[in-house]
Amino acid sequence: MKQSRLFAPTLKEAPSDAVIVSHQLLLRAGFIKQVAAGIYTYLPLGKKVIDNIETIVRAEHTAIDCSELLMPALQPKELWDQSGRWDVYGGELMRLKDRHQRDFALGPTHEEVITTVVKDYLNSYKKLPLSVYQIQTKFRDEARPRFGLMRGREFIMKDAYSFHEDAASLDVEYDKFVQAYHNIFTRCGLDFRMVEADNGQMGGSGSAEFMALAEVGEDTIVYSTDGDFASNIEVHDLAVGEPAPVGNGTIQHAKGIELGHVFKLGTKYSESFGVTFLDVDQKKQALMMGCYGIGISRIMMAIVEQKNDEFGIIWPKNLAPFDVHVVPICTKTPEIIDHALDIYASLQQAGYDVLLDDRPERAGVKFKDSDLMGIPLRIVVGKSIADGSVQIANRQTGEKLEVKVEDLKEALSEIYANLK
Amino acid sequence: MKQSRLFAPTLKEAPSDAVIVSHQLLLRAGFIKQVAAGIYTYLPLGKKVIDNIETIVRAEHTAIDCSELLMPALQPKELWDQSGRWDVYGGELMRLKDRHQRDFALGPTHEEVITTVVKDYLNSYKKLPLSVYQIQTKFRDEARPRFGLMRGREFIMKDAYSFHEDAASLDVEYDKFVQAYHNIFTRCGLDFRMVEADNGQMGGSGSAEFMALAEVGEDTIVYSTDGDFASNIEVHDLAVGEPAPVGNGTIQHAKGIELGHVFKLGTKYSESFGVTFLDVDQKKQALMMGCYGIGISRIMMAIVEQKNDEFGIIWPKNLAPFDVHVVPICTKTPEIIDHALDIYASLQQAGYDVLLDDRPERAGVKFKDSDLMGIPLRIVVGKSIADGSVQIANRQTGEKLEVKVEDLKEALSEIYANLK
Repeated sequence: MKQSRLFAPTLKEAPSDAVIVSHQLLLRAGFIKQVAAGIYTYLPLGKKVIDNIETIVRAEHTAIDCSELLMPALQPKELWDQSGRWDVYGGELMRLKDRHQRDFALGPTHEEVITTVVKDYLNSYKKLPLSVYQIQTKFRDEARPRFGLMRGREFIMKDAYSFHEDAASLDVEYDKFVQAYHNIFTRCGLDFRMVEADNGQMGGSGSAEFMALAEVGEDTIVYSTDGDFASNIEVHDLAVGEPAPVGNGTIQHAKGIELGHVFKLGTKYSESFGVTFLDVDQKKQALMMGCYGIGISRIMMAIVEQKNDEFGIIWPKNLAPFDVHVVPICTKTPEIIDHALDIYASLQQAGYDVLLDDRPERAGVKFKDSDLMGIPLRIVVGKSIADGSVQIANRQTGEKLEVKVEDLKEALSEIYANLK
Repeated sequence: MKQSRLFAPTLKEAPSDAVIVSHQLLLRAGFIKQVAAGIYTYLPLGKKVIDNIETIVRAEHTAIDCSELLMPALQPKELWDQSGRWDVYGGELMRLKDRHQRDFALGPTHEEVITTVVKDYLNSYKKLPLSVYQIQTKFRDEARPRFGLMRGREFIMKDAYSFHEDAASLDVEYDKFVQAYHNIFTRCGLDFRMVEADNGQMGGSGSAEFMALAEVGEDTIVYSTDGDFASNIEVHDLAVGEPAPVGNGTIQHAKGIELGHVFKLGTKYSESFGVTFLDVDQKKQALMMGCYGIGISRIMMAIVEQKNDEFGIIWPKNLAPFDVHVVPICTKTPEIIDHALDIYASLQQAGYDVLLDDRPERAGVKFKDSDLMGIPLRIVVGKSIADGSVQIANRQTGEKLEVKVEDLKEALSEIYANLK
C-alpha cells in the first residue's frame, strides 16, 4: 500500500487523558481515534492488527472443530428476563426501546441468545458435543471508561459456547479451549499467564483467566517464573482471593490485563431456558454448557503495553500491520523514488505486505513516523542507492544492515525468518 | 469440516411468515435463524457465505487503494445534531441513552462519524484524494421488518467514503467505485443492473443504484436486454421517475432488490462539520465527498432469490459455503465410511473446502439436506465403492457422473473449473 493513500494520522503528542503507554502510542501512531468516551474508531493500521489477531483466533478455533456464526447485537429483554440477568446486570447493560416501545439490550455477552438459538436443534445426545464461536462488537456501559481499548464501552470480543451431555464431555472440551487459548496468545507474541478465577455474573462452576503481564491493568497476579503450564494453573488471582505462592520458580508480582476467560457454566442457562436433550436411555436431561471469551481489541492494547520503546510501538511479526516499510528519503529525486517503487513492487511480488512511504515529507518526519508505527522491517532508500545499496533496519533488535539491491531479497528473507 | 460438528439445523417447513423463496430457503437450509423481528443470527453456513462476499468486496476495494477501517456503532447525538439528521431521520434511527443520560444513535450510516474522524487530518490538498471503507453491522428500526435479510433491523453493510479537493477528482473516484461495484456483483454471480437514483436523505448531487433482478423486491426497474455497461446507466428507476426505454435491446421489467448505492455528496457534510483544507493557493476550501454502500447480508438473500430450484439453493462457486459435499450413504459400513474419510482428507489436501456428512442419518435425509444447502459439487460414496467407484453430482447442472476413485481428483478439477 502507498502511504499517500493510507489514512494514518500520526500525532506529536497524545491527548492528556491518555495516561498509559499503549493508549498514548495507539493514538499517536494513528491506529485508533476516539469518537466518544470509551468509543473508538479503528483506523486502517489498527484494523489490520485486529485482522491479524482474528486470523489467529479463527485458525485455532477451526483446529478444535468449533465453527463460526454471528449473533445479533440487539437482544430482546424477554431473553434476559428468562435468565434473570435483566435485573441483576445493572448499569453496565446498555438498554434501548424500539419504535414499538419494546425493550432490547445491546449484547455484552450472548449466553441467552445462543441458548435460544440451539434450543430446538440439540434435542438428542447424538448431536453432542457441539461448539460455536463468534467475533463481534460488544457493548458495556462502563461507569468510568478509561485506558483506551482496555476498558471501553464498545469493543471486539470472541465468544464461544459449547454444549455437552455430561460433565466429562465438558471437561474434555474445556481443556481443548485452554490449549487453543495458549496457542492463540503465544502466536500473538504475548507474555501471559493462566490463573484461576471466580465465575462472577456468568454463573456455573470453575473458570480460569488468561492475563497479560503488564505494569498497568486492573488485577494483580502472582506467578511462578518456572512458567510451565501446570504451575501457572495453580496461581491465584489477587482480585479474587489471597495470593498463594506455588511452583518452584521465583514468585513474581505484576498488574495483569485480562485477555481471556474460560468458564464451565454447567446447566445454569439450559435450565433457565428449558433446553433438554434425550440421552442414550431416552431420558430428558439438561444440557451442560461452557463459554469461552477473548478480548480481541484488548489484545492489541496488551501487546503495545508489552512491546514498545521511547520511539514507538514494536510489533511482533504475526500482528504487525505490514511486514516491511519501504522509506525513500526523498520523493523528488528520480533515482531514489524509482528504486523505491521497484523494491516495493518486487517485495509485494515475493509475498510481503509492504507499505511504501511515498509522501512528500522530509526524511526526519518519515523516520519518526516509521518508528512510531513499529513495522518490523524498514528499508531505507537513500543516497547510497548511487552505489546500488539500501539499508535494512530491524525495529525489533535495532540492527541496521547495508545491502546491495540485488542481495536485498535474500538478506530480508533471513532477517524476516528470525523475527519474533 | 465434519457435519456432525457443524451447527446447521435444517427444517422441513419454513415458518409461515417467510413469504419469499430466499427467506424460506435460508431458514430451511440452516443458514440463518430469527432472534426477533428483523433480527437474525447467521448460522455457520450463512456466516461462510457472508465471509465469501466480504472477501470479494475487500479485494475490489484494495484494488482501488481504498483502505479498511472500523467505526463504532454508537454515535453521539451531537454529531447528528451537527448534520441536522437527528431530527429528520425519524423513527428508523435507533436511539438510546447511556448511564449518564447522554443520547446516542446506533449507526444506520456513518457520514457524521467519518467526517469528524478525518477532520483534523485532511487539512491540505497534498493529502487528497483519500478513500476509506468499513464492513460493519448497521441498525435501522424498520416499521415493518420483512423478507428476511432484505428489510431487517440489524444488517451488515459495506460503506465507503471518499474525500476530494474538487468535483473533477470526485468524478474520477466515483467512476472507480462504479467499476469496482460491477466487478463485485459480477464475481458474486448476480444478475444485476445499474440504474439512476435520487439522493434521498443523504443529500448531495448525483447517485446510482445497483439492483439485482428479481421477482420480489421493493422497486420496479426497466432495463435493456442488450445489457452493455453504457445502456444500463441510462435506465431509470420506476420508484424515482417514469421509465425511459433506452438502448437497442428488448425492454424488460423486474421488481428489483437494491444491492448497492453510490452517491456524490458534494460539500453537504464537510460544510456542516466545518471541514476545510488549504488548496494549492493556500485558500480554505470545503472538502468534496462521495459515499458508497453495499448491503452485504442482502447480497446473500438476492443470490438465493436468483439461484434456487424446488429442492433448495444453488450456490454460485464464489459464494458457496463449501466447494464439495462428501456424502457416504451409510456411516456404519466400514468400506463406505473409510473411503469417504479418505476422499475427504485427500480433497482437503488438494485445496478444496470440503464438508463430510458423517451424521448417523439415512441416505434420503442426507441427500435432501445436501440439495437444500446447495453446495456445488457432491460426491456420493455408496454401494458402487465395491467396484472402486463414486458418483459426482453437479448441483448447478444436475449432471451426475460415476468415476473411479483414482480418477476422482482429475474429474473433479475439470468440473470445478467449469462451475459458474
